Amino acid sequence: MSDTALSDLTSDTITDAVLSTLHGTKDARLGEILESLVQHVHSFVREVRLTEEEWAKGIEFLTGTGQLCTATRQEFILLSDVLGVTMLVDAVSHERRGDATENSVLGPYFRDDRPRRPDGADISEGLPGTPLYFEGQVVDHRGTPVAGAGVDVWHSDGDGAYDVELPGRTDPAMRALFVTDEAGRFTFRSIRPASYPIPGDGTVGELMRSTGRSLMRPAHVHVLIEASGFQRVTTMLFPADDSHLGGDPVFGVRQSLITAYDTYEAGTGPCRELTDERYTVVRHTFVLEPVPEG
Amino acid sequence: MSDTALSDLTSDTITDAVLSTLHGTKDARLGEILESLVQHVHSFVREVRLTEEEWAKGIEFLTGTGQLCTATRQEFILLSDVLGVTMLVDAVSHERRGDATENSVLGPYFRDDRPRRPDGADISEGLPGTPLYFEGQVVDHRGTPVAGAGVDVWHSDGDGAYDVELPGRTDPAMRALFVTDEAGRFTFRSIRPASYPIPGDGTVGELMRSTGRSLMRPAHVHVLIEASGFQRVTTMLFPADDSHLGGDPVFGVRQSLITAYDTYEAGTGPCRELTDERYTVVRHTFVLEPVPEG
Repeated sequence: MSDTALSDLTSDTITDAVLSTLHGTKDARLGEILESLVQHVHSFVREVRLTEEEWAKGIEFLTGTGQLCTATRQEFILLSDVLGVTMLVDAVSHERRGDATENSVLGPYFRDDRPRRPDGADISEGLPGTPLYFEGQVVDHRGTPVAGAGVDVWHSDGDGAYDVELPGRTDPAMRALFVTDEAGRFTFRSIRPASYPIPGDGTVGELMRSTGRSLMRPAHVHVLIEASGFQRVTTMLFPADDSHLGGDPVFGVRQSLITAYDTYEAGTGPCRELTDERYTVVRHTFVLEPVPEG
Repeated sequence: MSDTALSDLTSDTITDAVLSTLHGTKDARLGEILESLVQHVHSFVREVRLTEEEWAKGIEFLTGTGQLCTATRQEFILLSDVLGVTMLVDAVSHERRGDATENSVLGPYFRDDRPRRPDGADISEGLPGTPLYFEGQVVDHRGTPVAGAGVDVWHSDGDGAYDVELPGRTDPAMRALFVTDEAGRFTFRSIRPASYPIPGDGTVGELMRSTGRSLMRPAHVHVLIEASGFQRVTTMLFPADDSHLGGDPVFGVRQSLITAYDTYEAGTGPCRELTDERYTVVRHTFVLEPVPEG
């Protein structure tokens, strides 16, 4: 590198100069990612002729987004979600067989400290709401049950609030880790989730208001399945009758993930002996895809 | 928007779907910036086929960068600097006349709480180092002195440390705001700055190590000039004999900003009566550009 190669850079020469400094990257994949990133960020700045004031607002936005993140809130994941980046990463990084369960976004509410619960457990922890009976089965692409799969479930309450958003609650609720039985089955009881707005009090909320977009997500139960020899599935199930299915702000809806949330009056239906209230039943079969060979 | 327009999105359809949600943006300029941003971020993800693990590392990197920011440290600006974005923004957002003083990066060390000091003040606050005498003049593009210009200066000590990096020091040092006199002049005494590494203990440091890049910046005195009717200049002056001029990690070096840092033995030179030590003199004329008309 000559003494002047990195000085007096102009809009026309600075991109190549920055790329030249990446040639020493030991990890070839990291080098590839950084090269593409630098080219696209520079193209963006040139294309819109970003001003210093706009750049400063961008720095402020990114800083604020990072500073909102805590153990129970991840504003950068939310930003990725509302810009469609999370679903795009899923689309480009998985080749899925036609019958495998499709992915959706992880979202910001997964918690590592969720409890392991036995089959059939009530994970509502006594929170009020319409009783929900969930019956899942995990199978492989040939329909063979997958025993011993780890199944994480988490969802909101009937006001659309997750446990971490309930004032005064620090213990997990409406979330648990289950393990499928020999028939690939897992079941649990909880309360029916509702549609809810993504967090609107942070940088992402500000962005959504500026662009006139709705914060409302359709109701859903998150399901994350891991089993040895299979690709991890991060997905969610939406009620077929939800009014927000057409405008999901995080682009997570897939027709294959829209499921009947069957509601039965008290004393009727398959679970009539388990409750004396009106209740909801969700049944779903999840199809795992093997880890690619080679 | 139909009920299904935003569902079942693929790598091929998601970008247009996200762009369609931006049509309600009230501020046309914001809409233009977001459209370009979404297209480039999506193109980047598709081009490198970003995996979930790589996306998660990216989220972690951005979050960590935001969380390192404090009142005295701005890791996102540093990231913008080392990716050449800061200098590119300057290049695309200013059309500069041939003789006007060129910009460089603001960097992360500017402090709003710097003192206003009178002409000729010693801003070293007693810190040890080689005495530095700085004589500046601010003129317009016709060479006419600009009186009453606000001139901020800030720099490191002889070990490359700024005041905020000195253990136990909270008061500003090696920084001040001056105002030019009727002849457009400002002068101050301080200590000679040295080349120094950009902060290596954060996310940007990690990135620089991964790419095998040097953290060392050439020594410099930052100068920021604001005067009514003129474009603000954010610049810095580098010593002509610095060994790091050819590899500045923030791409801030311009040949026009490389200046003689003349060193005189004790008892010799223009300031021989002001000190009994070996000392350095920097003289520079800054040329302001009028605010564009219309």
